[in-house]
Amino acid sequence: MQNAIATIKETNPIVLTVANNVTPADVANGLNALGASPMMSQTPEEADDMVNIAQAAAINLGTLNPHQRGEMEAVMEAAKKYHKPTVLDPVACGATMYRLRVVTELLHQYHFTVIRGNAGEIATLAGVEWQSHGIDAGEGNADLEKVARLAAEKLGSVIVLSGEVDIVTDSTRLARLPYGSPAFKTHVGTGDMLSSLIGAFLATNDDAFDAAVDAVTTFTLCGQAVEDQRPGNWYPGLLNNLDAVTDQQLAAWQ
Amino acid sequence: MQNAIATIKETNPIVLTVANNVTPADVANGLNALGASPMMSQTPEEADDMVNIAQAAAINLGTLNPHQRGEMEAVMEAAKKYHKPTVLDPVACGATMYRLRVVTELLHQYHFTVIRGNAGEIATLAGVEWQSHGIDAGEGNADLEKVARLAAEKLGSVIVLSGEVDIVTDSTRLARLPYGSPAFKTHVGTGDMLSSLIGAFLATNDDAFDAAVDAVTTFTLCGQAVEDQRPGNWYPGLLNNLDAVTDQQLAAWQ
Amino acid sequence: MQNAIATIKETNPIVLTVANNVTPADVANGLNALGASPMMSQTPEEADDMVNIAQAAAINLGTLNPHQRGEMEAVMEAAKKYHKPTVLDPVACGATMYRLRVVTELLHQYHFTVIRGNAGEIATLAGVEWQSHGIDAGEGNADLEKVARLAAEKLGSVIVLSGEVDIVTDSTRLARLPYGSPAFKTHVGTGDMLSSLIGAFLATNDDAFDAAVDAVTTFTLCGQAVEDQRPGNWYPGLLNNLDAVTDQQLAAWQ
Repeated sequence: MQNAIATIKETNPIVLTVANNVTPADVANGLNALGASPMMSQTPEEADDMVNIAQAAAINLGTLNPHQRGEMEAVMEAAKKYHKPTVLDPVACGATMYRLRVVTELLHQYHFTVIRGNAGEIATLAGVEWQSHGIDAGEGNADLEKVARLAAEKLGSVIVLSGEVDIVTDSTRLARLPYGSPAFKTHVGTGDMLSSLIGAFLATNDDAFDAAVDAVTTFTLCGQAVEDQRPGNWYPGLLNNLDAVTDQQLAAWQ
Repeated sequence: MQNAIATIKETNPIVLTVANNVTPADVANGLNALGASPMMSQTPEEADDMVNIAQAAAINLGTLNPHQRGEMEAVMEAAKKYHKPTVLDPVACGATMYRLRVVTELLHQYHFTVIRGNAGEIATLAGVEWQSHGIDAGEGNADLEKVARLAAEKLGSVIVLSGEVDIVTDSTRLARLPYGSPAFKTHVGTGDMLSSLIGAFLATNDDAFDAAVDAVTTFTLCGQAVEDQRPGNWYPGLLNNLDAVTDQQLAAWQ
Repeated sequence: MQNAIATIKETNPIVLTVANNVTPADVANGLNALGASPMMSQTPEEADDMVNIAQAAAINLGTLNPHQRGEMEAVMEAAKKYHKPTVLDPVACGATMYRLRVVTELLHQYHFTVIRGNAGEIATLAGVEWQSHGIDAGEGNADLEKVARLAAEKLGSVIVLSGEVDIVTDSTRLARLPYGSPAFKTHVGTGDMLSSLIGAFLATNDDAFDAAVDAVTTFTLCGQAVEDQRPGNWYPGLLNNLDAVTDQQLAAWQ
């Protein structure tokens, strides 16, 4: 969408995130810097009201627990009821049997508009062999485009596979976005941030593939533009760029 | 109080915060930078001991859940028992029926020394029509001074209504503090920080109206002094100023 | 160990932390900057799998609650089963009866490879009189080396007593590490960070005393090297140094 960023900064869409316990402040500040309005909740009792006033919802499995699972289900039920777009971040879903079981059940119960993860996480969802390394991507030999397409076909979602080159696909369309930078790995939670930022773009664009491409492009270019910064300064620089970025500037960076 | 800041920096009052899940680190670092001693807890089992050694307690509804409500009640019971001043931050209390119900019940059960919120939150407590926008202030036509006075009368608390101009009132006295800055909106959690900082000023001053005025003035001036900073650098600048600020410097800024 | 830092940066050991609710992002970013791979979890259901793929586990009592206690026990059971080294951070264990009871029971049930705390916390574990001040060290007259040795003897753990001079002892060997700086107190959570960083050094060194000495030396020198920074800039500077530090640089700083 040509004016994706301007639209977000003008309309301040509310993105409800069921966040993990480690990086919720970074996710909230990322959304806030871009111009979206972050909202977080921990209890099913208010999921219906929250989703009703939100324009998109993001679910993050980072520090999943049984209580939070109830919250995730309540949010997804409400998203179905109110036809709100949703994003799933299946953090470390291949690392433990518990996560694998929960994510499998969630994907059986609910449809997510977009699913964003690293190679290991998307491979797990696609049913491809992969060796997890905790929350990191791990290692495997599969062709990443094929893995992303497979997951998109299987789940009927737009897949964002984050890596050196980011892959976005709805199984028919596929974009390779080469704006990543090693700098993103120097700060914990950039994946979580991107997943919720995708929600902000979904809130203002009915074409989910297009919205995901815009979100990835915006986020990675804002981070790449300060990649010469040392780790402790890179994250503030990323926020500064998310705050200042315009559609024009983004076009010039590409 | 003429030497409010010096007193906090010398006596390091312990402020117990029942925090939300998003910004507890910012709240703790804000208290710490000012010279207070932050303490946080998640379980009713230790509420009595914690409140006993604390000089003030702050309750934040940001990511309220049924378990946390028990913790809030235990802290308020102990605060009543030990006569400790308390602050309520009714985050997004008008956004969901669940929050509205809990905050109504809490205010029926307990008296808070100070209540701090944005226009939408204070309007909700005062029973004035207001349109919430997630965690943001939203929009309404009411006269903000009247709203703040109404809430103060109804609840018997000092009300801090945060906005472009901050209003502090105990229903008879009213202060308009014009030191706010748009910079505060660029970082998520500044409201949460201020609510707990009010606790530090209450801990060292028996006049709650006066303490709230000092807290708002100190916090907003420390933030205003670095408002030319870009968002990712503004928050560190705020902490630097909270660390360095003196009563003399504050007087010179005003 | 002569190449302790290089080993961590090359092997990226996974350190599982049962974190508190306030500073998990700082702990994760500290591990990440050093080159370790942070992992956090909130549910006993996945403790066995998580510990199995981790190289070390750290338990932090910062915002202990009954649910989290179950998680701590599940992690410690798995650590025993898989022979993984463990670290305990007994935050404010003397401040409430609830914490004292839980830490006493945990230490009765499980052996920790290393225990790291401030003077008040270690004195509490050693059974020495001490006056707590919330999460801060508080005051007491005991000889700190004696306190640390006493705790090490009593608990059979390597003790790290953090203070102006850091003391590390396994009851026979004792190191006094004078690299601390008042700067560490300007940021909340540096103790939590160090406890998990000790896990990274334990993961790559079977001599726990030696690993603890290396961890303390690395962390304190990385912080001391930027102690002239103001508080809001000191923490990013610490992360920058953890990211850049080499064994050679460390040797030159000492």
